[in-house]
Amino acid sequence: MHYAWLNALPHDIPATLRRSLEVAAFEADAFFAPRQKQVSFSVEPGLGEAYRLEENKDGFHVTGGESGVLYGAYALIRAQQTGGALPQGEQRPHYPLRMLNCWDNMDGSIERGYAGRSLWFEEDAFQYDPRRIRQLGRMLASCGVNVLCVNNVNVIPPAQHLIDTLLPDLAAFADILRPFGVRLMVSVDFAMPMQDGLSTADPLDAAVQAWWADRAKEIWTAIPDLAGFLVKADSEHRPGPATYGRNHAQGANMLARAIAPYGGQVIWRAFVYNCLQDWRDTETDRPCAAFALYQPMDGQFDDNVILQVKNGPYDFQVREPVSPLFYAMPRTRLALEFQLAQEYTGHQIDIYAMPPLWREVLDAIGPDTPRAIAAVSNLGRDENWTGHPFAQLNLYAYGRFAWEPDMEPEAVICEWIGLTYGDLTADQRDALAQLLLQSRETYEKYTAPLGLCWMVNPAGHYGPSPYGYEFQSWGTYNRADRDAVGIDRTAAGTGYADQYPPEIAARYADPHSCPDNLLLFFHRLPYDFVMQDGRTLIQRIYDDHFEGYDRTAAMAETLRVLPLPEQDRAVVLERMERQLRNAREWRDVINTFFRRFSGAEDDKGRKIYK
Amino acid sequence: MHYAWLNALPHDIPATLRRSLEVAAFEADAFFAPRQKQVSFSVEPGLGEAYRLEENKDGFHVTGGESGVLYGAYALIRAQQTGGALPQGEQRPHYPLRMLNCWDNMDGSIERGYAGRSLWFEEDAFQYDPRRIRQLGRMLASCGVNVLCVNNVNVIPPAQHLIDTLLPDLAAFADILRPFGVRLMVSVDFAMPMQDGLSTADPLDAAVQAWWADRAKEIWTAIPDLAGFLVKADSEHRPGPATYGRNHAQGANMLARAIAPYGGQVIWRAFVYNCLQDWRDTETDRPCAAFALYQPMDGQFDDNVILQVKNGPYDFQVREPVSPLFYAMPRTRLALEFQLAQEYTGHQIDIYAMPPLWREVLDAIGPDTPRAIAAVSNLGRDENWTGHPFAQLNLYAYGRFAWEPDMEPEAVICEWIGLTYGDLTADQRDALAQLLLQSRETYEKYTAPLGLCWMVNPAGHYGPSPYGYEFQSWGTYNRADRDAVGIDRTAAGTGYADQYPPEIAARYADPHSCPDNLLLFFHRLPYDFVMQDGRTLIQRIYDDHFEGYDRTAAMAETLRVLPLPEQDRAVVLERMERQLRNAREWRDVINTFFRRFSGAEDDKGRKIYK
Repeated sequence: MHYAWLNALPHDIPATLRRSLEVAAFEADAFFAPRQKQVSFSVEPGLGEAYRLEENKDGFHVTGGESGVLYGAYALIRAQQTGGALPQGEQRPHYPLRMLNCWDNMDGSIERGYAGRSLWFEEDAFQYDPRRIRQLGRMLASCGVNVLCVNNVNVIPPAQHLIDTLLPDLAAFADILRPFGVRLMVSVDFAMPMQDGLSTADPLDAAVQAWWADRAKEIWTAIPDLAGFLVKADSEHRPGPATYGRNHAQGANMLARAIAPYGGQVIWRAFVYNCLQDWRDTETDRPCAAFALYQPMDGQFDDNVILQVKNGPYDFQVREPVSPLFYAMPRTRLALEFQLAQEYTGHQIDIYAMPPLWREVLDAIGPDTPRAIAAVSNLGRDENWTGHPFAQLNLYAYGRFAWEPDMEPEAVICEWIGLTYGDLTADQRDALAQLLLQSRETYEKYTAPLGLCWMVNPAGHYGPSPYGYEFQSWGTYNRADRDAVGIDRTAAGTGYADQYPPEIAARYADPHSCPDNLLLFFHRLPYDFVMQDGRTLIQRIYDDHFEGYDRTAAMAETLRVLPLPEQDRAVVLERMERQLRNAREWRDVINTFFRRFSGAEDDKGRKIYK
Repeated sequence: MHYAWLNALPHDIPATLRRSLEVAAFEADAFFAPRQKQVSFSVEPGLGEAYRLEENKDGFHVTGGESGVLYGAYALIRAQQTGGALPQGEQRPHYPLRMLNCWDNMDGSIERGYAGRSLWFEEDAFQYDPRRIRQLGRMLASCGVNVLCVNNVNVIPPAQHLIDTLLPDLAAFADILRPFGVRLMVSVDFAMPMQDGLSTADPLDAAVQAWWADRAKEIWTAIPDLAGFLVKADSEHRPGPATYGRNHAQGANMLARAIAPYGGQVIWRAFVYNCLQDWRDTETDRPCAAFALYQPMDGQFDDNVILQVKNGPYDFQVREPVSPLFYAMPRTRLALEFQLAQEYTGHQIDIYAMPPLWREVLDAIGPDTPRAIAAVSNLGRDENWTGHPFAQLNLYAYGRFAWEPDMEPEAVICEWIGLTYGDLTADQRDALAQLLLQSRETYEKYTAPLGLCWMVNPAGHYGPSPYGYEFQSWGTYNRADRDAVGIDRTAAGTGYADQYPPEIAARYADPHSCPDNLLLFFHRLPYDFVMQDGRTLIQRIYDDHFEGYDRTAAMAETLRVLPLPEQDRAVVLERMERQLRNAREWRDVINTFFRRFSGAEDDKGRKIYK
């Protein structure tokens, strides 16, 4: 097995450890005893997840809440291993809910999973290696994740039974993760009462409310610390309150009231749009959908409802503006949703380190706007957990950002490198850090240009197909023609830009103040439009794509000489070859696509296929 | 159950009938006894499949070979039911092998199946209703098909075991169809010896040859009249002789020698091309592939090898020229392969009657060029066998063409209507016949223009995606840009046209003599190219697409008032709505696609979306 950033710790955690304090003591002792230091603990239950660290003559003392002591232990180990300073004073996580959404199906497949099959489901049942689940618990605790949603938001049978007949199995799984401070969450099917014989799932129907109340009682009796329900409703053919003429506040609140007595939370996903759009319809604009639906409901959600909003208005594209909902729902608890699974960002074949994205998003909306944070998991049964070993960084860094959303990307990347590849020299670490730090921009340069989105293969979402989504029903158009490309999302167009506060809207609305990398998200522009740096739009597209490939080739050179541990090196080099092929394919397809439309030659005379 | 064109016959065939003569007598008696006529039979074994019909004072006398009497009985019934004249003199089928290739997988799915699941496979085993299989046997006999290949040419496990552990089940299935003059065939995996422990499947290896010889002995002991093996080798990732540095003659002949002692035939598919082409490569041209590979091998195949060639050089597109192999392999037995399954021609949702296509192909190559004929099945477990009831016509007409390849499309269509919808008036029959007769041209007009091919959705092959295949590896490009569209396949381009005999090559090579409907198959032309009728290319594309939709709308009107039997009427009208939506989608997507590239307005000011 691969031990990710925890390779300095013992390779197994005894199943006999049932409390976080016991795990903390085990880990600290294993790490510090060989270093001639002792670590002592005291639990102050009121501290919850918080902790304090002190150095003393024998070693260290950790004071913390029930799980706080565990976070403290990992912080000590991290500081020791990376040579960092001990955190001073009381440490507590910025977001109380730091969720990992696993899109695992009970047949063992994972929707958008790129690291093998499910770690806990197979053959429509829980099937797992408890040793590996404990290892997972430790990974999550060591970076700070505290909620694991076990099943796909698209609740594919028999996963609906996780809250009835399969509840004992769910409870047994929760028992394994509990010592690591990780609570479970479950995705539920809004229409579930009808599978149980009711004639409706109308949230205002008393029998439906009673059904959910009964169910909640049984669920929380079995798993008293279950974090709550994750719900994808009225989205991409999932059932929801709209079927019964009710709005999403009514739907979410009904569930919320059923589970409130037990401290459960309803995480209601705001990923709702018309997935049966007619491409001829230029009025409807998918990025507008969530704001139009939810903003008028601000203040109508119960206290234990959290509206979970993806970082951008589309769907985890490589470059989108942040969702305007984050500026518009002050009276609603929001969760910010990221996607660690590299669905549109290279399938964990291409290197794509996400901290720079998160830094941008959190800076744009402010870390206090969301009240919780979630990410779609990139984990699977692959020996190294994430397919590409560098994709482990995204899980690790996600947990760290969830604790400290003001982290700098470079700091968290260096921290992860220090833990994972401690044997590299300082120069080698720095080379790897720079490579990772720039990897998103590199990927962006060779894929869809300047915020255009959706130029990916519709089948599978890897590789280019610049018109593959163009005439489909997903609301995903670039409308390239011989004169221009893009959609006007200003007031003169679909009006999307006006969903932002005025000063932001004004910046986006003018193509001369709009950031270059979002230019084609907000504007329809002719190929000879002159960018802020004086280049034409078409030349900028060509330049970016040549540069994206060249940067990828340079990454390959860097990696070729980097003495990674052998088990990682082989995987990294093999995937790098695939990334290089992918970058070449994107470069040439995108350049050819735009050359065919625009007729423009490259200023620098590089090869663009006809 | 739906009885297709046999609804005038009793609905079940007794399982006790074991000889064709018994079936013939049963059918004739059931049909003619109520009509106060008697039918007598005499078997002359030497006649084989042939028969003679005579009228006498009591009714009719049929003289025929073992299965000839059965064909004679159905011919009598057909003539009586449709009011046609009795065929005079000895009747014998033009092609001795009239094959139906079923792409059924043993899990019950059918590759490119649009009429439900397999009629005989489910759960990795034979599972069927014997009553329905007898009904199938009768359908095949009544139109003239005499070979059924039971499994997909892509031999998906466990179908490789049809020739070893599953042989008893295959034999039992053969027993059911034998009384109907239908022999089985099986698709085999060229690398099968390696699954059985051999280290190679090299056709020149003595152990491999011995393995196949042993296997053949066992197979033909179990099923003495098995027709032979169907083989897809070295194609789309299937194993084949190329793996071992051997050519296809060596591969096919090895199998042929193993099964020759039993009268078995090897049907070797010529559908071989590079499915990993780089779209940047403009030298490689997929339509050239089969000729380049096989033509030099003319004369090298054993007598019991048949090279099965698809009607066109690509893959059952709505409009292709005929394969040049049909002009170039005089010393090789060829089979002509059609596809009844409407993979690229509307999924048995859209109406697409194939006889006009077959007439064109057979006229182009001459009916004596192929020595056998095959078609990919359009059958499935749907109540009406083919999804769309009109798709039954294609199965029926295929069998009839296989007997009499000089039939006129209108004649066979009228015959099928007479048998199937005998209650319609003459005017109604004529309206339906005209609708069917024109249905292919209608479909062609609203889909890819003028022989351009491959503008279909890569995922599933239904509906438009004009650039969906453009940057893929399948060798399927239209290379549309702002100035022109198409690939130059003349001597100045890829040279494909020169694979034809000189007079045909010359006609195709000149865009002014090339048939309009193949213009964009053979030429790359600017949008303002002037067609033979004076219209520009772009205007012709627009006109065709508006016309294709309008003709579809007119079809819907015709069908709305046609008093089909209720069980068919509901299905037909529902599918017609879907066809109309599909035609609208194709019309608008193709017109918009070319407008975006060309910038040309429609001369007639009709709506083309931007």
